[in-house]
Amino acid sequence: MTVEDDATRQGRRAAAATLIVMYLPRRIKHCRVCGTEVAYRVPVDDNRERAVCAACGEIHYENPINVVGTVPVWGEQVLLCRRNIEPRHGFWTLPAGFLELGESTAAGAERETVEEAGARIELQPLFTVLNVVRAGQLHLFYRARMLDTTLAPGPETIEARLFREDEVPWDALAFRTVRMTLEHFFSDRRRGAFEVHAGDVA
Amino acid sequence: MTVEDDATRQGRRAAAATLIVMYLPRRIKHCRVCGTEVAYRVPVDDNRERAVCAACGEIHYENPINVVGTVPVWGEQVLLCRRNIEPRHGFWTLPAGFLELGESTAAGAERETVEEAGARIELQPLFTVLNVVRAGQLHLFYRARMLDTTLAPGPETIEARLFREDEVPWDALAFRTVRMTLEHFFSDRRRGAFEVHAGDVA
Repeated sequence: MTVEDDATRQGRRAAAATLIVMYLPRRIKHCRVCGTEVAYRVPVDDNRERAVCAACGEIHYENPINVVGTVPVWGEQVLLCRRNIEPRHGFWTLPAGFLELGESTAAGAERETVEEAGARIELQPLFTVLNVVRAGQLHLFYRARMLDTTLAPGPETIEARLFREDEVPWDALAFRTVRMTLEHFFSDRRRGAFEVHAGDVA
Repeated sequence: MTVEDDATRQGRRAAAATLIVMYLPRRIKHCRVCGTEVAYRVPVDDNRERAVCAACGEIHYENPINVVGTVPVWGEQVLLCRRNIEPRHGFWTLPAGFLELGESTAAGAERETVEEAGARIELQPLFTVLNVVRAGQLHLFYRARMLDTTLAPGPETIEARLFREDEVPWDALAFRTVRMTLEHFFSDRRRGAFEVHAGDVA
């Protein structure tokens, strides 16, 4: 093997490792049941590596998590929140956050809208279902009708504001799913018919 | 905001928190980072109990997980699989399973169809998005066109079979989301237009 080959291989390994780490966080070091150190291996009757406890046999599955939010609408305007938290501090987002155990996607989307913007809304149909595979997330946005313009941003929000389509800060949006959802919203509104849009963020 | 409004909002938040605690399985006994025993408490800047490690400070979030599957269609018939695993061993299901890290909902739905039925399909649009709140799951089904009638059921399936609407074993279906998805499918097909159906299983 030449030095070049070795370097290339090292690079490829590093790239592959990065990819794996990106997809498989391997954040689990200890068993959640008994506290023993786990090892990543493929369990019997499975085809993927999981964190398995050698002591008690517990298998720890890691799955994508759901982010739920809304497109709150007031007349010609949509509501955006400027993030007071990382990631993307200072950038604009639709109100959204992690779906909790014990709530439906619709309930979670409404809760996040109240928590982040303090907006009073009537939830409307599911609008986008967008995979963010590299982040291990699925983003689901509902349309929502604002009942008034009262806003009371929570601690995660610097400010909440209404924007007409030509005022949207496209270059200062926090996430691609927010951009895609807004693009679908304005496009559907223009043609006068809303439908559910499903897809992936590259 | 008036005092009454604030009290009402506080009350709603408290009620929601109680509900969440009821559902939380509390399966986490030890910290995944350092192995120390965890305690369930509300972290700073949070409003829900989480498994928190007193030794290293790790907060363990538990979120609903996604189940993805298909409605494989061959002419007038749909494909169902008889489960060879618990829960609901021996009952009929649409091919479906847990979404994995590193794959999109569409890719996961196609993978499960291959793994459980050995069917060759062309994936079609997202069809149902159904919350099973009590199980901490979100079920997403895609329609799919079968490319041929070749079937090769995997180890999780006793048998895979095509059913006309009047042959579907309604009383022997494994899950309510399967029933709802099939009902929407036949109903939409009857009126000649498919749309995305979102909702909750009670």
